[in-house]
Amino acid sequence: MKETPTEAQIASHRLMLRAGMIRQSSAGIYSWLPMGFRVLRNIEQIVREEQDRAGAQEMLMPTIQSAELWRKSGRYDDYGKEMLRIIDRGERELLYGPTNEELITDIFASSVRSYRDLPKNLYHIQWKFRDEIRPRFGVMRGREFLMKDAYSFDLEKEGAEQSYLKMFVAYLRTFARLGLRAVPVQADPGAIGGNMSHEFHILADTGESDLYFDAAFEEYTAEQMLKADFGMVKDLRGLYAAADEKHDAANCPVPDGQLRQRKGIEVGHIFYFGTKYSAPMGAAVTSSTGEQVNVEMGSYGIGVSRLVGAIIEASHDEKGIIWPESVAPWKAALINLRYGDAECTAAADGLYEKFQNAGVATLYDDRDERPGVKFADADLIGIPWHVTVGPRGVKAGVVEFKNRATGETVEITPEAALNRLAVKA
Amino acid sequence: MKETPTEAQIASHRLMLRAGMIRQSSAGIYSWLPMGFRVLRNIEQIVREEQDRAGAQEMLMPTIQSAELWRKSGRYDDYGKEMLRIIDRGERELLYGPTNEELITDIFASSVRSYRDLPKNLYHIQWKFRDEIRPRFGVMRGREFLMKDAYSFDLEKEGAEQSYLKMFVAYLRTFARLGLRAVPVQADPGAIGGNMSHEFHILADTGESDLYFDAAFEEYTAEQMLKADFGMVKDLRGLYAAADEKHDAANCPVPDGQLRQRKGIEVGHIFYFGTKYSAPMGAAVTSSTGEQVNVEMGSYGIGVSRLVGAIIEASHDEKGIIWPESVAPWKAALINLRYGDAECTAAADGLYEKFQNAGVATLYDDRDERPGVKFADADLIGIPWHVTVGPRGVKAGVVEFKNRATGETVEITPEAALNRLAVKA
Repeated sequence: MKETPTEAQIASHRLMLRAGMIRQSSAGIYSWLPMGFRVLRNIEQIVREEQDRAGAQEMLMPTIQSAELWRKSGRYDDYGKEMLRIIDRGERELLYGPTNEELITDIFASSVRSYRDLPKNLYHIQWKFRDEIRPRFGVMRGREFLMKDAYSFDLEKEGAEQSYLKMFVAYLRTFARLGLRAVPVQADPGAIGGNMSHEFHILADTGESDLYFDAAFEEYTAEQMLKADFGMVKDLRGLYAAADEKHDAANCPVPDGQLRQRKGIEVGHIFYFGTKYSAPMGAAVTSSTGEQVNVEMGSYGIGVSRLVGAIIEASHDEKGIIWPESVAPWKAALINLRYGDAECTAAADGLYEKFQNAGVATLYDDRDERPGVKFADADLIGIPWHVTVGPRGVKAGVVEFKNRATGETVEITPEAALNRLAVKA
Repeated sequence: MKETPTEAQIASHRLMLRAGMIRQSSAGIYSWLPMGFRVLRNIEQIVREEQDRAGAQEMLMPTIQSAELWRKSGRYDDYGKEMLRIIDRGERELLYGPTNEELITDIFASSVRSYRDLPKNLYHIQWKFRDEIRPRFGVMRGREFLMKDAYSFDLEKEGAEQSYLKMFVAYLRTFARLGLRAVPVQADPGAIGGNMSHEFHILADTGESDLYFDAAFEEYTAEQMLKADFGMVKDLRGLYAAADEKHDAANCPVPDGQLRQRKGIEVGHIFYFGTKYSAPMGAAVTSSTGEQVNVEMGSYGIGVSRLVGAIIEASHDEKGIIWPESVAPWKAALINLRYGDAECTAAADGLYEKFQNAGVATLYDDRDERPGVKFADADLIGIPWHVTVGPRGVKAGVVEFKNRATGETVEITPEAALNRLAVKA
């Protein structure tokens, strides 16, 4: 898009539209165009790998659920107008799932019988629907959105806490791999009590929530987060962090100089809720002593499509998006500066083939456009490395090699460019 | 499941329920349990790779669409009760997409302007919904189902035919990789004329349709299909093939001895439909001479979730499923024959670790169950290779190595078993 879309109020929404990542098909419902889809898939894959690493098993629940199940848990009437309710041709009441506690509990109840099958953690990455009255901010608050939701099942509270901590670690690792700084904020655990509910907010100047937290959070590096363990979780849970509505300046335990105030975006939520669903829905197993015990459950969500927007909010400048390499749609943009120049085009074509053969995901800009347009577009869509082949460089045996994030540009040989990109793969 | 479920009328539905691959959540709506999900994902990935190879670009359209779009094409009123219609909280008319011609045409119209951007082929793999009056046969005729649908856009009919042929080749390769024998059957091209519509039926004794076709089809091997090109497509299109309702025995061009009658299941459909949607929806590009030209379109579907059932229909015996290696949930079942026997368990544990390290997808059966139960379950869920570690074998330094498809069993060293599985990876 040449113009800045007027309906978009926030940076990520504007940039996603301008870069051609998404297209709105109805209010709060988007199509993911090829470039946007690549980013969505990259994020999804990192989320998946960390769930698998934590021992969760992937499955897939359908988008459409029966109202009957939600009546069993008592939530059908409570859920309100955000639930998209549907009547099918047989006059059955259905709904587009906004979340899956009921369905997974029902599946568990029908298929797991013994304590020996526990602990268990099942997750899926599936589209959900919440009929927001005012969908806005693009994919950040859409109606149809992609969420990873995991559900843990344990015999006892102690086991449930272990399951909770495993997901806590998985979340720290996930956000670090996505190039994000995440702050876990203790959330209202509702009727359960204790402090077994955390929201994960990532820091972004354009975020929607005000966060107050101990500066010690900022000392953790991405490398440390990737080595997260239960000990680190304990340390992090000991640090003060609160969202605006919970923060009480008068009674804050953190001294002023040590307190940070930053904007944040909620991208994950983990929650221990005991037997809230297992009891009414009859999800019990036989214990080692032969008793029937309602299982202890937790749920663990990550907003996958929301993360696309959140990463942009956390990482952009006035020129456009700055993708972390782990989620970038392509690692390199290869720019043929002079469309129609035979020598220049031959050099660029040759280099593109070499990039392909080396497995470097490359967007080749061989359009008949002015250099300025090509540079601006590569900046806009935020590809981490820009390799420019121009007539002068071809004669000198060099290409321009630019780092999108820093703007740093060097002239190096095409071979050196290939090496740098292939090594970083 | 111990018992054969009574509601399942066909083999694939029975076997998928018994093996714990799926669980029905509402009529014609299924959850994919971890094992079923692995198979679904493997099939999806093969379909994706062949679409990419053919030059199609992946994207993702939402499940929920606006009624307005379907009014533009004139199909909203025509579609009937199979369309799941939804009213949202703002009283807007929505629907759960049964297919995507309207939406993709709208996206194309808004984003592509010039003949220089053609040809283009966009696809997605997304859940669809058809509100069947009588959903049955498990995932073979479910209401919520996963489909790959691709849409091609060309300036002229000649280009559209090339796009069609590319997809024809991709389909031959896809089904060959899935271990299936597919017969392309010329279908009714509707108002367009010509013979640019084919259904792909796979052969299965328990199939739903009766196919009549030239025996020459059976001479094509999977290896040949993997080398399919336009020439082979031309040859195949020259061979007689017809479904029951089209076959006219009296006027069949194939002599009796050369005519085969087999049962089949439709798993794909490719279709050239010209400007049927581009004209009413204004999807035009500027040609090289400056004219506005409505684009020539085709659509290309594969029933991904249906294929899970179709493959089972084509490949099972009285003991259970026989997965082709390319889609099997795991390549090997490792069976510890004697739960509780320290020596046997140590050997099996050690071998499992070696399989893991060698990247052999392995289901490790270390349950406290009788050998007969374990063998029966490995047969039921159809894992291609069964490696059994028993006390006698451990002493002799061998394991049992069984081919699920042929039943052939040999005693070989654990190292030899590992080599065979790793080599075939």
